[in-house]
Amino acid sequence: MNFLSDNAYGAWSEIIAAVTAAADGPAPSYGADALTAQIGVQFERIFSRRIMAFPVISGTAANALALATLSPPHGAVFCHAEAHIAVDECGAPEFFSHGAKLIGIEGEHGKLTPAGLATALSHHLKGFVHHAQPAVLSLTQSTELGTVYTPDEIAALSRLAHEHGMKVHMDGARFANAVAHLGVSPAAATWQAGVDVLSFGATKNGAMAAEAVVFFDPADARDFEYRRKKSGHLVSKMRFVSAQLDAYLTDDRWLARAAHANRLATRLADGLKAVEGVEIAHPVDANAVFVWLPDELAARLRNGGGAFYDWGPPAGGRTLIRLVTSFATPEADVERFVALAGGRA
Amino acid sequence: MNFLSDNAYGAWSEIIAAVTAAADGPAPSYGADALTAQIGVQFERIFSRRIMAFPVISGTAANALALATLSPPHGAVFCHAEAHIAVDECGAPEFFSHGAKLIGIEGEHGKLTPAGLATALSHHLKGFVHHAQPAVLSLTQSTELGTVYTPDEIAALSRLAHEHGMKVHMDGARFANAVAHLGVSPAAATWQAGVDVLSFGATKNGAMAAEAVVFFDPADARDFEYRRKKSGHLVSKMRFVSAQLDAYLTDDRWLARAAHANRLATRLADGLKAVEGVEIAHPVDANAVFVWLPDELAARLRNGGGAFYDWGPPAGGRTLIRLVTSFATPEADVERFVALAGGRA
Amino acid sequence: MNFLSDNAYGAWSEIIAAVTAAADGPAPSYGADALTAQIGVQFERIFSRRIMAFPVISGTAANALALATLSPPHGAVFCHAEAHIAVDECGAPEFFSHGAKLIGIEGEHGKLTPAGLATALSHHLKGFVHHAQPAVLSLTQSTELGTVYTPDEIAALSRLAHEHGMKVHMDGARFANAVAHLGVSPAAATWQAGVDVLSFGATKNGAMAAEAVVFFDPADARDFEYRRKKSGHLVSKMRFVSAQLDAYLTDDRWLARAAHANRLATRLADGLKAVEGVEIAHPVDANAVFVWLPDELAARLRNGGGAFYDWGPPAGGRTLIRLVTSFATPEADVERFVALAGGRA
Amino acid sequence: MNFLSDNAYGAWSEIIAAVTAAADGPAPSYGADALTAQIGVQFERIFSRRIMAFPVISGTAANALALATLSPPHGAVFCHAEAHIAVDECGAPEFFSHGAKLIGIEGEHGKLTPAGLATALSHHLKGFVHHAQPAVLSLTQSTELGTVYTPDEIAALSRLAHEHGMKVHMDGARFANAVAHLGVSPAAATWQAGVDVLSFGATKNGAMAAEAVVFFDPADARDFEYRRKKSGHLVSKMRFVSAQLDAYLTDDRWLARAAHANRLATRLADGLKAVEGVEIAHPVDANAVFVWLPDELAARLRNGGGAFYDWGPPAGGRTLIRLVTSFATPEADVERFVALAGGRA
Repeated sequence: MNFLSDNAYGAWSEIIAAVTAAADGPAPSYGADALTAQIGVQFERIFSRRIMAFPVISGTAANALALATLSPPHGAVFCHAEAHIAVDECGAPEFFSHGAKLIGIEGEHGKLTPAGLATALSHHLKGFVHHAQPAVLSLTQSTELGTVYTPDEIAALSRLAHEHGMKVHMDGARFANAVAHLGVSPAAATWQAGVDVLSFGATKNGAMAAEAVVFFDPADARDFEYRRKKSGHLVSKMRFVSAQLDAYLTDDRWLARAAHANRLATRLADGLKAVEGVEIAHPVDANAVFVWLPDELAARLRNGGGAFYDWGPPAGGRTLIRLVTSFATPEADVERFVALAGGRA
Repeated sequence: MNFLSDNAYGAWSEIIAAVTAAADGPAPSYGADALTAQIGVQFERIFSRRIMAFPVISGTAANALALATLSPPHGAVFCHAEAHIAVDECGAPEFFSHGAKLIGIEGEHGKLTPAGLATALSHHLKGFVHHAQPAVLSLTQSTELGTVYTPDEIAALSRLAHEHGMKVHMDGARFANAVAHLGVSPAAATWQAGVDVLSFGATKNGAMAAEAVVFFDPADARDFEYRRKKSGHLVSKMRFVSAQLDAYLTDDRWLARAAHANRLATRLADGLKAVEGVEIAHPVDANAVFVWLPDELAARLRNGGGAFYDWGPPAGGRTLIRLVTSFATPEADVERFVALAGGRA
Repeated sequence: MNFLSDNAYGAWSEIIAAVTAAADGPAPSYGADALTAQIGVQFERIFSRRIMAFPVISGTAANALALATLSPPHGAVFCHAEAHIAVDECGAPEFFSHGAKLIGIEGEHGKLTPAGLATALSHHLKGFVHHAQPAVLSLTQSTELGTVYTPDEIAALSRLAHEHGMKVHMDGARFANAVAHLGVSPAAATWQAGVDVLSFGATKNGAMAAEAVVFFDPADARDFEYRRKKSGHLVSKMRFVSAQLDAYLTDDRWLARAAHANRLATRLADGLKAVEGVEIAHPVDANAVFVWLPDELAARLRNGGGAFYDWGPPAGGRTLIRLVTSFATPEADVERFVALAGGRA
Repeated sequence: MNFLSDNAYGAWSEIIAAVTAAADGPAPSYGADALTAQIGVQFERIFSRRIMAFPVISGTAANALALATLSPPHGAVFCHAEAHIAVDECGAPEFFSHGAKLIGIEGEHGKLTPAGLATALSHHLKGFVHHAQPAVLSLTQSTELGTVYTPDEIAALSRLAHEHGMKVHMDGARFANAVAHLGVSPAAATWQAGVDVLSFGATKNGAMAAEAVVFFDPADARDFEYRRKKSGHLVSKMRFVSAQLDAYLTDDRWLARAAHANRLATRLADGLKAVEGVEIAHPVDANAVFVWLPDELAARLRNGGGAFYDWGPPAGGRTLIRLVTSFATPEADVERFVALAGGRA
């Protein structure tokens, strides 16, 4: 019963098959191959727009490269106070951008609000040389707390960002889960709501190591190629990354697998909230469940074989835990966990 | 007849099989998995020594992370004037090290000599705050020109470097080809000759995307882990990188495949040097052949289906070209190319 | 009536005289001169301890160089949410440290508390590669809000920082004002309370452009020299910076001048708080007065010739303003300002 | 007899007087003062053109800020192999530019040639992501070896640089000496010959610590202001730097003082070359004399009170030394040194 993270699971058989098929014979290196060209086509189909997409091998690389391309070294990147880019990447955005500042903003359930962004912006005077200059708004979708921004919420935030001359970045490490939840087109969830650049994640939802940075306006891509090379992220046998993305995007598999993960998370939440003393902390939109448990229940679940992270220290006899489901989480694991929580296993 | 680069070819079936086998079920992420532990054991077996090995996904990342770990921002890294780290990584070592200087030194056939290194060192006064401070000697093995340092040559350079308080790094993107040529143990070719840190390449010799940074003295690894994370090179599903390295190292396959590539390069050189007007430019130790061709011969080879890079502009009616063979280069391609050159095809 | 900042005023006549005296004849450059040696002696006298002191020409340089010397690129620097290093240096600490993260912590009246620091530390797991690693605690003394930490407060914070393996940095751009207020020895206000490195400011209190980074443990100075050179802060005619510091430190002038500024600030506060509708926002320990004024009073003071900064937008009919006094602020200006506020001028 | 460097001497009395005059009363900080406005006017007069000039306090800062403004992190800066920026700034350009590469090019007497530049450019393919991209040509004027480029030489180099999309930077730490030697207008020596940005030095020729970065096309200045702030080079009491530059530029003093230094260098060279066994190594255009001396003569000169640097290790019984004269070098020192060399003192 592994609910530690969606990256604890392996890779789809279709992705392994694609990589296997790509292994034979010579091909142009560094992304000049046919498979890499093909994923550009795939992304343009999915987003109904001319884009530029660059495969990379980690979400941290995708985010940091995107932010460094959008922000000068003296820029400020506004994000949620609990954003992955701010707290879980060991300063990668600062490294890639040569020192841009990440400005963490509080917001309920992991989501920024226009009011919160406006307050933060009021502390950064435009053209005042002593202040980091507003450059990027970064939204995580789905958020670090398992919630999902609606297109309207994104549009309101993007509008404010654009009014201040900023670009909008979306950290879509779990973009599939968000789109599967929203039931709208990928276009509606991104550029039609004002997103300029997307870190499109595939690894957490079933690739081995494949993400893409998608620029909705090719002009924004500027010197991305040089940054990718300089940071060691231009792999020579790019076909193996592109093959993963190609299989991922084909036949909308990516959305179907994410929907499975989302469904299991909802099932977990529904099952757990019926248990005495349990409280769901945040809306369960995507594939993560944050739940307050009595400490003895947390211990019982772990003793029974459940694996999950505490999301902070115990407080008043209970603990906030995080449960993440994935494309490959067995349905039986969810049922057993719920039963265990309810004292029926 | 693709002789453009050894990275033009795909991946071994054993490596694909290992990746496939690793795809099922949950595993600890970020390198805490069993396969990653296993490759540490493999490297210790191969190098007959306690080491620390960190998988990464590109040679540029391996080199730049290694150099940044060994050199402070005010350090100088001495290398051959044509070293890959100096001319073909778009400044990655400077980026990762936050500005260390690469000092290019001339040397015949792509190899540094103690005399050349001593001269370069004489321009960098120790403790003189205006000068970048000698920090690392970086050797490429096999070199960018297809030659291989002998253990004695490495030892002489390492001794001088160590006397000046420097560490010795080896860029082993084609380490397998070098060891296969030398016929000595990997230990003899590295730490026993004074090498402190090795960028151990597997991609060019048949992995999809897998390299390792091997520290022969674990104390040198210092903050490597943080640098890898911060640069986006700590992949979450590390098992897929480690699986490649595990298959690569098993049963000394890595040396057998490299020996194949080397043999074909020698065959190419032998075949070509018999042709009128052809001159082999450098000793063919590993899997690259540098050869001067009359321009009309170069054109004929290309028209006949040969793919290779010019290594500089034409000069006096002839051009220096580079031919690279790989683990997967068909023997028939080599024979056909030689026949074409000899006017027999 | 210029209360904009203490850096709006010029320089002491003693400092000008010292610079004039230093102008003739040859002297060793880059800090090997006699005056630079002399200021080391002066600092050792003042701090009753063997130290290493490096002159620089701006507070931003002093802070950023100190922090970069103490923190690795993957380090976290904990400071007050309104700290100058966090909000008014356009990312200089991030630039010099190659990407260290500044973690802003709230605290009343511009002062950090051990409880606030402990909470922030709980979000940065030691050895967890995804988190920036706690490296430095930075305290501003006097604070950005005109308050002063007591030695006991500093000691409590330093103890906690040291327990977590962090170093303690003090941004002493207004260190003179703090010591003058406390009435303790400079030693008691720094290393005896656990401070490891001090940015010792002189510019705001009457130098032209002179600060010093003082390491209380010379071992901490490590590669400071190279960082100073590499950032363009090793001036060739160092004698002119050292001459300023020498005059500044002689005969405890620095404390006398700071005491003057502090006294005027207290006088301002006392005068203003007697006015209807005026509220002093923070204790007036040093040379800054933060005061809430009815908007019409603020306008009247400006119309009457008062110059000062608003410290945020108007709120509910009143505005928070900042008044700063300096070594050279005329006493008459203070009296006139108070009279104007009281409707008596 | 101090011929170590022109920075061994102090400051002009006019500069001290200007600083003294600037010391009283309040003034806007961070460069918003009247004196800083005034030096913009002075530079526009001198260069007969609308420019943007930014005062800084060291030549290293001027050069590194200028280069970082002109070159992206993946850029290449072409300069002479012995350029100060390449060998004597401990990697400052790499630090400020976040990793741009300095490409050293050989050239007789410290001067680059179009042929040398063209060869270096042929190794950096435009748009090839593995190569650092040509961004800036940097010329030192006068050169590190005491020679001076003619306007025609500069124009030929600039033309080639511009054809390759590069900007042209001039390191004018000794610009005054160069212009005094050429006898042309500052405009003819810079923008009229294709120079885009000038590091205008004043310190070596008699300021305490004052340089300026002069952009001949204001559009090139882009984010210079933020870079200067972020690197700690925006001093609060800017008036004290600007006062130095104002006095320096007034009444063409800067050229008269440089002419003095140049004249003494020529006198040194003329006197020394008459001595048996002495050979002048480079044309003596500006204020530096490079001369080969028999080792016993070098020893005699030092024993007699001469101070100068060896410019490399002894070779074949003689040593190359450097002698630098300054605005304040006593004529008598020169005569005594020559007499000593000739065995007449």
